[in-house]
Amino acid sequence: MRIYDIIDKKRHGDCLSQEEIDFVISSYMSGNAQDYQISALLMAICINSMNEAETSALTKAMVNSGEVLDLSLLGEKTVDKHSTGGIGDKTTLIVAPIAASLGCTVAKMSGRGLGFTGGTVDKLESIDNFKTELSIDEFYKQANDIGIVVVGQSANLTPADKKLYALRDVTATIDSIPLIASSIMSKKIASGSKSIVLDVKYGSGAFMKTPEDAEKLAEAMIKIGKDFGRRVTAVITDMNAPLGTCIGNSLEVWEAIEALSGRGEENLIRLCSAVSACMVSSALGVDMEEAESMVESAISSGKSLDKFYEWIEKQGGDVSKIKDTSSLLSAKFKRDIYAKEDGYIYSLDAQKIGTASMILGAGRVNKDDKIDHLAGIKLSKSLGDYVNKGDVLATMYTSNDALFDSASLTFEQSISYSKCKPKKSDLIYKVIK
Amino acid sequence: MRIYDIIDKKRHGDCLSQEEIDFVISSYMSGNAQDYQISALLMAICINSMNEAETSALTKAMVNSGEVLDLSLLGEKTVDKHSTGGIGDKTTLIVAPIAASLGCTVAKMSGRGLGFTGGTVDKLESIDNFKTELSIDEFYKQANDIGIVVVGQSANLTPADKKLYALRDVTATIDSIPLIASSIMSKKIASGSKSIVLDVKYGSGAFMKTPEDAEKLAEAMIKIGKDFGRRVTAVITDMNAPLGTCIGNSLEVWEAIEALSGRGEENLIRLCSAVSACMVSSALGVDMEEAESMVESAISSGKSLDKFYEWIEKQGGDVSKIKDTSSLLSAKFKRDIYAKEDGYIYSLDAQKIGTASMILGAGRVNKDDKIDHLAGIKLSKSLGDYVNKGDVLATMYTSNDALFDSASLTFEQSISYSKCKPKKSDLIYKVIK
Repeated sequence: MRIYDIIDKKRHGDCLSQEEIDFVISSYMSGNAQDYQISALLMAICINSMNEAETSALTKAMVNSGEVLDLSLLGEKTVDKHSTGGIGDKTTLIVAPIAASLGCTVAKMSGRGLGFTGGTVDKLESIDNFKTELSIDEFYKQANDIGIVVVGQSANLTPADKKLYALRDVTATIDSIPLIASSIMSKKIASGSKSIVLDVKYGSGAFMKTPEDAEKLAEAMIKIGKDFGRRVTAVITDMNAPLGTCIGNSLEVWEAIEALSGRGEENLIRLCSAVSACMVSSALGVDMEEAESMVESAISSGKSLDKFYEWIEKQGGDVSKIKDTSSLLSAKFKRDIYAKEDGYIYSLDAQKIGTASMILGAGRVNKDDKIDHLAGIKLSKSLGDYVNKGDVLATMYTSNDALFDSASLTFEQSISYSKCKPKKSDLIYKVIK
Repeated sequence: MRIYDIIDKKRHGDCLSQEEIDFVISSYMSGNAQDYQISALLMAICINSMNEAETSALTKAMVNSGEVLDLSLLGEKTVDKHSTGGIGDKTTLIVAPIAASLGCTVAKMSGRGLGFTGGTVDKLESIDNFKTELSIDEFYKQANDIGIVVVGQSANLTPADKKLYALRDVTATIDSIPLIASSIMSKKIASGSKSIVLDVKYGSGAFMKTPEDAEKLAEAMIKIGKDFGRRVTAVITDMNAPLGTCIGNSLEVWEAIEALSGRGEENLIRLCSAVSACMVSSALGVDMEEAESMVESAISSGKSLDKFYEWIEKQGGDVSKIKDTSSLLSAKFKRDIYAKEDGYIYSLDAQKIGTASMILGAGRVNKDDKIDHLAGIKLSKSLGDYVNKGDVLATMYTSNDALFDSASLTFEQSISYSKCKPKKSDLIYKVIK
């Protein structure tokens, strides 16, 4: 078998076998296939696509390239959740304790973020003394004891996916449904949960620009899940503005606590309710209607907030400090941003707001950059709100006030005003399984 | 401008501008664009193709990547010739002196071969004392004085083409008409001749498998030539068997002298007559019929053989030695290969015969390998000949008789026999300009 012949085959639109795909991945990982050969193959896949069997075969090869977590000891109720990315996406902090409080088991290894804000692990580390490194025994024990554990990724899961993704990122071969689907699903399969809930976003800031494409991606992922014996549900959601009101690490923990206390922003609550209902329905085998009412009462009764605090305490976090939530909004410097015109907020570019937040210190440009956990942006107005010139639109938080000018300039580019009230699009387009 | 965006554009089938293509080539040559980015772009070009304007733009960028020979001092009658490759292709040794003897100017920088046999320069070096390195002044002076000069490539012509070709060779991106056309034409444009005659081959051993594809490639090259103000003629020829009877360096010089003496094998003579008539017609501005009769009388009168000897002598070669042509067939060891069956020779795989010849020492596997100039194969039978078991099919020549067994085994795989006389296909499919 030669890499050359496999590239040539895909170039001419032929299908690759599991054996050929395994050969590609193992040759790439061993250094026998070169970056320039794999990038040519990836381009051929982007243009000529892959069928369902090839997509599953690629997923399998990537799963087998590294370690695989065996969560079978934890039973049938393990459930994982993945979002295809978004600015201000703190849903894991909210849906994980909701699902756990209702009897699901959420045992997650989560990555750190590169870009606009940190990942879930970075957000959790804004809580004093929270430990994101546990031994594998501690990880299983906590999942078993309280139904929820989130740690940094210590196991070497899907190294082939990491290597391929880095190459795709510089060769214009990211936005291919089979490649995105196999990349996401390989990580989820290797992470071991029986049920998987996917939040598939579409919109200007997402991989998929239209709900139709997002649905195709969701269907490809559901098909892969079936091939691996997993139950997969996908929630297809609009991502044209940041989710909720906060972007930044401790700010998002603050907002998660607000949401679990029943005070969340409308869209954030809608999304978290839908995602956690899917998790509960899939993991516990109840219908969606029942799952939705279970979720509602878990929030209103305070059960899910209690589960959140139990979780944070179990991993060493200083709960008494965050119960006074003002500590999460205590950055050394704060500055408001004011509306420059009268009118409805017509657009609120999520990418630009993310960039402004990164400038303030909330995200990493390079892998080894240190995050300013208290930095970020808290929006006072949402898409479609009417504002008068001079109203406060948002508040910036940072430990370094030299960053305010540049961040506010970027923030201001994210906003446009209109005389007419913009039509509100529905946050949730569809739930499919 | 970013390489990423250019790759993405071609991935989606959009056209690239001259400016964008220039940016790709200059970034690649400066090391700012990486192999893995360029191979992704090449794959996108292979699948989504390039239009005529893009193909000319790529040619121009490759021409501009290195030195360009200015042959304008030599006047309007400069003519170059290129073949898309073949086993036993010694046409340059024959057509160059024919054209020069009729008043054309053939001033060529020619590469060394890698593979089955050497290139034209290697073949010429099998003549004692022949100098393939001349100063640029000597090169122009000889072209001006006697109308013919062939040297090794000393100028740095089209380095971008070399770099791209090496990458295409390992990423299954060779057989794309726009990429092949721009690669060949960039070298011909940079080589400076006003007229260019292309021998475009099709068949099992060629890039183009069918005469229709060869015609498309020829048309693409003619179009590029027009954009650069060159007169381009293409002869489309069948390449399913070796050309002539000899494969090997000194053996091919021997065969060239035979052909110039009017004793060449039928197909070789047909091809060389057609190619040299195109050269004469294009460079001197006479019609094809007149050019054909000029070529015929140049051979029959001995004028072109005289020009050959004049040329060899001018570049220092020992003419008295090759006038006794047996010196060119004087390898230390010779061994015949016999027919194993009765029947018509139904196929004669050119690639396999080339490999057998390379095994005997006539070609290079690696760039620095030394060639055995006297090694090779001389066929006694041609495609379609009837043979009886035990007849001599061919003679192998080498300085190392340990190579005979392996070479003859490979040679035997090249032949198949049939009870029926195979249909002869016409060597020359078409001449277009």
